[in-house]
Amino acid sequence: MLIVMKPQARGEDVQRVCEKIEALGFRAHPMPGAQRTAIGITGNPGPIEPAEFESLPGVAEAIRVSKPYKLVSREVKSEDSLIRVGPPERNPNIAGEPGGFVVGGPELTIIAGPCAVESREQALTAAEHVRKAGARLFRGGAFKPRTSPYSFQGLGKEGLEILAEVRRATGLLIVTETIDPENCDLVEDYADVLQVGARNMQNFSLLKRVGRSRKPVLLKRGMSATLEEFLMAAEYVLAEGNYNVILCERGVRTFADHTRNTLDLSVIPAVKRLSHLPILVDPSHGTGKRDKVIPLSRAAVAVGADGLIVEVHPHPDRALSDGYQSLYPEQFETLMGEIAAIAKVIGRTTAAS
Amino acid sequence: MLIVMKPQARGEDVQRVCEKIEALGFRAHPMPGAQRTAIGITGNPGPIEPAEFESLPGVAEAIRVSKPYKLVSREVKSEDSLIRVGPPERNPNIAGEPGGFVVGGPELTIIAGPCAVESREQALTAAEHVRKAGARLFRGGAFKPRTSPYSFQGLGKEGLEILAEVRRATGLLIVTETIDPENCDLVEDYADVLQVGARNMQNFSLLKRVGRSRKPVLLKRGMSATLEEFLMAAEYVLAEGNYNVILCERGVRTFADHTRNTLDLSVIPAVKRLSHLPILVDPSHGTGKRDKVIPLSRAAVAVGADGLIVEVHPHPDRALSDGYQSLYPEQFETLMGEIAAIAKVIGRTTAAS
Amino acid sequence: MLIVMKPQARGEDVQRVCEKIEALGFRAHPMPGAQRTAIGITGNPGPIEPAEFESLPGVAEAIRVSKPYKLVSREVKSEDSLIRVGPPERNPNIAGEPGGFVVGGPELTIIAGPCAVESREQALTAAEHVRKAGARLFRGGAFKPRTSPYSFQGLGKEGLEILAEVRRATGLLIVTETIDPENCDLVEDYADVLQVGARNMQNFSLLKRVGRSRKPVLLKRGMSATLEEFLMAAEYVLAEGNYNVILCERGVRTFADHTRNTLDLSVIPAVKRLSHLPILVDPSHGTGKRDKVIPLSRAAVAVGADGLIVEVHPHPDRALSDGYQSLYPEQFETLMGEIAAIAKVIGRTTAAS
Amino acid sequence: MLIVMKPQARGEDVQRVCEKIEALGFRAHPMPGAQRTAIGITGNPGPIEPAEFESLPGVAEAIRVSKPYKLVSREVKSEDSLIRVGPPERNPNIAGEPGGFVVGGPELTIIAGPCAVESREQALTAAEHVRKAGARLFRGGAFKPRTSPYSFQGLGKEGLEILAEVRRATGLLIVTETIDPENCDLVEDYADVLQVGARNMQNFSLLKRVGRSRKPVLLKRGMSATLEEFLMAAEYVLAEGNYNVILCERGVRTFADHTRNTLDLSVIPAVKRLSHLPILVDPSHGTGKRDKVIPLSRAAVAVGADGLIVEVHPHPDRALSDGYQSLYPEQFETLMGEIAAIAKVIGRTTAAS
Repeated sequence: MLIVMKPQARGEDVQRVCEKIEALGFRAHPMPGAQRTAIGITGNPGPIEPAEFESLPGVAEAIRVSKPYKLVSREVKSEDSLIRVGPPERNPNIAGEPGGFVVGGPELTIIAGPCAVESREQALTAAEHVRKAGARLFRGGAFKPRTSPYSFQGLGKEGLEILAEVRRATGLLIVTETIDPENCDLVEDYADVLQVGARNMQNFSLLKRVGRSRKPVLLKRGMSATLEEFLMAAEYVLAEGNYNVILCERGVRTFADHTRNTLDLSVIPAVKRLSHLPILVDPSHGTGKRDKVIPLSRAAVAVGADGLIVEVHPHPDRALSDGYQSLYPEQFETLMGEIAAIAKVIGRTTAAS
Repeated sequence: MLIVMKPQARGEDVQRVCEKIEALGFRAHPMPGAQRTAIGITGNPGPIEPAEFESLPGVAEAIRVSKPYKLVSREVKSEDSLIRVGPPERNPNIAGEPGGFVVGGPELTIIAGPCAVESREQALTAAEHVRKAGARLFRGGAFKPRTSPYSFQGLGKEGLEILAEVRRATGLLIVTETIDPENCDLVEDYADVLQVGARNMQNFSLLKRVGRSRKPVLLKRGMSATLEEFLMAAEYVLAEGNYNVILCERGVRTFADHTRNTLDLSVIPAVKRLSHLPILVDPSHGTGKRDKVIPLSRAAVAVGADGLIVEVHPHPDRALSDGYQSLYPEQFETLMGEIAAIAKVIGRTTAAS
Repeated sequence: MLIVMKPQARGEDVQRVCEKIEALGFRAHPMPGAQRTAIGITGNPGPIEPAEFESLPGVAEAIRVSKPYKLVSREVKSEDSLIRVGPPERNPNIAGEPGGFVVGGPELTIIAGPCAVESREQALTAAEHVRKAGARLFRGGAFKPRTSPYSFQGLGKEGLEILAEVRRATGLLIVTETIDPENCDLVEDYADVLQVGARNMQNFSLLKRVGRSRKPVLLKRGMSATLEEFLMAAEYVLAEGNYNVILCERGVRTFADHTRNTLDLSVIPAVKRLSHLPILVDPSHGTGKRDKVIPLSRAAVAVGADGLIVEVHPHPDRALSDGYQSLYPEQFETLMGEIAAIAKVIGRTTAAS
Repeated sequence: MLIVMKPQARGEDVQRVCEKIEALGFRAHPMPGAQRTAIGITGNPGPIEPAEFESLPGVAEAIRVSKPYKLVSREVKSEDSLIRVGPPERNPNIAGEPGGFVVGGPELTIIAGPCAVESREQALTAAEHVRKAGARLFRGGAFKPRTSPYSFQGLGKEGLEILAEVRRATGLLIVTETIDPENCDLVEDYADVLQVGARNMQNFSLLKRVGRSRKPVLLKRGMSATLEEFLMAAEYVLAEGNYNVILCERGVRTFADHTRNTLDLSVIPAVKRLSHLPILVDPSHGTGKRDKVIPLSRAAVAVGADGLIVEVHPHPDRALSDGYQSLYPEQFETLMGEIAAIAKVIGRTTAAS
């Protein structure tokens, strides 16, 4: 059920509806929009009568929601969500007010950096490169989910501290992965955006935990997740009260063997139609091959993605993980130049433009 | 084995090498390039000694080819192939010389029209629309492979005659499907480009037959074809002597259900790396949904495809096949405008630009 | 539309219904069952009124068929189809009456032999082995669809003549592949069963051609065919008048890489539920690995398949195609022993039992 | 690296090798076999010289292991692992000594019960049914990973207490799912086998946690996990010191839509070849359709699986989750009868036999 308030409804009207919902044993999710507020109802699904709400002051209508996802749906919130990243006290996206950034706005979100934080020097060098080329956010794993227990698992807390230093030194916002609920307690002290990896897309304990965080969440599509499963995973986060979810397509598993995964760019317009959440593309994991990253980045921007998350390493050949898909710094500059031109065509901007 | 001639090699040198190859019981495939000629050798794979050829006049080197495909490979021919479509007596792509077109050159190849030819009026109306919007080639099936024996199977010969009338009336070149070797005898009298559909990608009898045709071939990737199988299918056509093959990505079958197929745009740069053949994208079959066609067309151009094949129908809701994925004429104009802008960014042109 | 006759309806009643159907411009498919006859109606799908038929003598009811497939459906024919293979003048499956065989009856259908006929000696040796171990039908390709144009394509007509000699020498019935409509003219002179390969499952010209043959058809599931597409391919054959179709699961293409294809045994009970046609399993192509053939053969019999088609070669290591998945003759004996025991458990028999 | 001890090596020889390994900063995994002990070495992969160990008393050889998995590999341990479930003080599998069970031995492991524990009555009724029919272990989720946050998530701790009561009342051993590391602290107090679900197959935090448990682990294959990824997930558990891992095939995600997942039975012989761990099959999730469970159970036993995990519900139509794939109690009896007969053929037993 979804309660849509009238444009002129006041804060106390919204408050009253929420109280009634909770009195009935459900949970209320007020979602303010530019024009008017909608209130999602979740909880143990007993029957509710629309009429119970439609008589309250300020209520425009009460709608039964047909899709399994509710809070992520455009039926609940028709405007695109803008996800604010970075210190709340600063005014993002305004000159002289560095530090914050809005994902889903006109400027493409460019997140770049190495797969894993390997050392202070490696991280700072990579960060300096990507900042100069126009990235606003820095990626780098401190905790790495690896297929083998014998592979490099990340520097852990030391990696997080290096990331904090990167932020201080460069002003880049930090995107890094959290791998379980307990680990999230630590990671959210350092990260500006909490990344949930593809292998954890249906780790519901982790989804609930990041749903209770105040930091935005970057949620990657699972390796064989349908669109509905992807949106339902996001729904878990929103249902806990964290509406700041950024989706990310990173390739799916198919029979095709010329790339490591098959990047499914059609999911971008499909998400845009069904959901108000922004969605990025990861062309590095999405192809697993360095020479495919630039063309697929161009395609991702052209198809309408809100941005990219790209692996860049100062010395890909010496990388401890995923070096074969990391760009050289000069390739990242090329990429930024090419997508800036395409962004313009479709009415988006980049830091470079 | 591949014989690479010296840049200064004369026609008679090439001739001599070919004769030697045939004398050994193999088949010679001379492929002239801008700089120098390469000669592919195919046939029953007995052992050949490179030394047998390297001593001949004009021969630069004899290379054992490691990939299973040879003639389609960049190892054999490093320059992009330009595929000339339309009347040979006319000089394609030059003002005042209408009628011919070169696929794989700077101008994007835009093929548009209905899934099936349904009537004279429908075809002519559609053709007029797409011509005005900038298409140079017209698509329309006279023989339709359909999943059900009870579905509309195309108008057959009558459909081909309508296509011929479309060419006369609009100057558009005709791309239409051939469904078996016998049928090809008929279709090649009408078509400018012989289309081999996805379901026939490994119909080797048909591949051999179109390989003996003088008309260029548009070869669609099979629903679950690996890149290697796709290139090997093209190799069948080249091995019979027809080097004018245009590849086409049209989506592959995966678990994903938000589109009818999963359009695999990463195959474009992968083909470009391995093969000299041009490759188009079919965003209509590739997504199966009208509202995905324009964004994926932009992405296809951005990723580096040589063009598009798009379904456009004057009245999609009345179409006898695939109406739900056909664009309305005005949507096709929008598409042409958007891809013209992106084409410019990556150094390509369109008729509109 | 499906017309179900009363049990006591006479031949002339059936005849009258068929005439009425044809007079309306449709095509009638009388399918006699043990209890009563059903008559399928196919053709250009205009509206028919059930009442037009229900008033005719002998008609029990006229049913609108909801599935896209009709003639292959259990709605049209509830009893399992028994497909008679071999000389019609002989009484199959009766001692002293060798030469014929019934696919879909209590005895499991065991088809065995090499991937390709390579020589008279190889074929005769293989045939002698598999006959002794209990096979009733011999497989061997004379025309081989191969991914590469440079691979061994089969002995052609010479291969067919060797197969004819195998039949004379051993009494085994011959199953061999036909690759295009023209080729079918030749193959049907030699084969007892016409095989349509996986790559040709949607080669509709070939399906229509074998649909006009008097020989039974073994139709292999395409590499990425859904169950509905598989049944629709069979429907093409039945719609042309050849009701003797034997289906065959041979593995589908997935991301899994421990076998060449993923053998989908769940399709056996799924087919049994929807269709009256018998279905075999090909564990050789279905796994692509010799050491998986015996366990998957046991599983195929246990799941309820009507039999197996297995590659056996006298010298797998010298095979010109698919040797790595062919059994050694002694392995085939082991296989026959193991499946005989499982067959007994589920109420089937083998020649060995 | 793998150290293989001589058959006559004494406990102190093994001890000495382990100490040397740990002194070098690695971790030692002694794995006693029937003939001799092997010692796996894991840890930060610096170079080790075989010669350093081959000179120690009792050492037969030191082998570099080529596969990415080590401890799960047959190269490390050639005999099948027998996984002891239930109270260690009791002698499993011996008459008069109920309570314990050995997975991987001659008797097939049959785990049955509802998808989720819904109530005391439902669980006890289901347990009584499956015990009578011959199951030795009871399945039932107290914590349920669900695609939707609004679906029934299990009874939690109350569910675990009901499971404990089921064990007391019926003697059945309890298999239940743990969903995150913290939750594992609770679940391992109640469960005899800790289940890790398909969605958590690469939840490495959870794998490490169950790797430190003293309870055996049932590890389900992920929805799109390759065989290597599946074995590497098990390797995570063994690498932490818990060698009691039971694998389980539960269907993979493909394009096929006649079942919810595609049950990949070929993975059974593939696992048997590469690993010493036992493997079960889940035909309920593997097909998602009640009428496919019995035939695929027969096939699973025939292919060589060590047992089954099957959903049985007293009233499937009233089930809170997955009712459409749960068997009726009388269907489970039929299943047990059919697999008992097949088990005999391949040299296995069931409680019923």
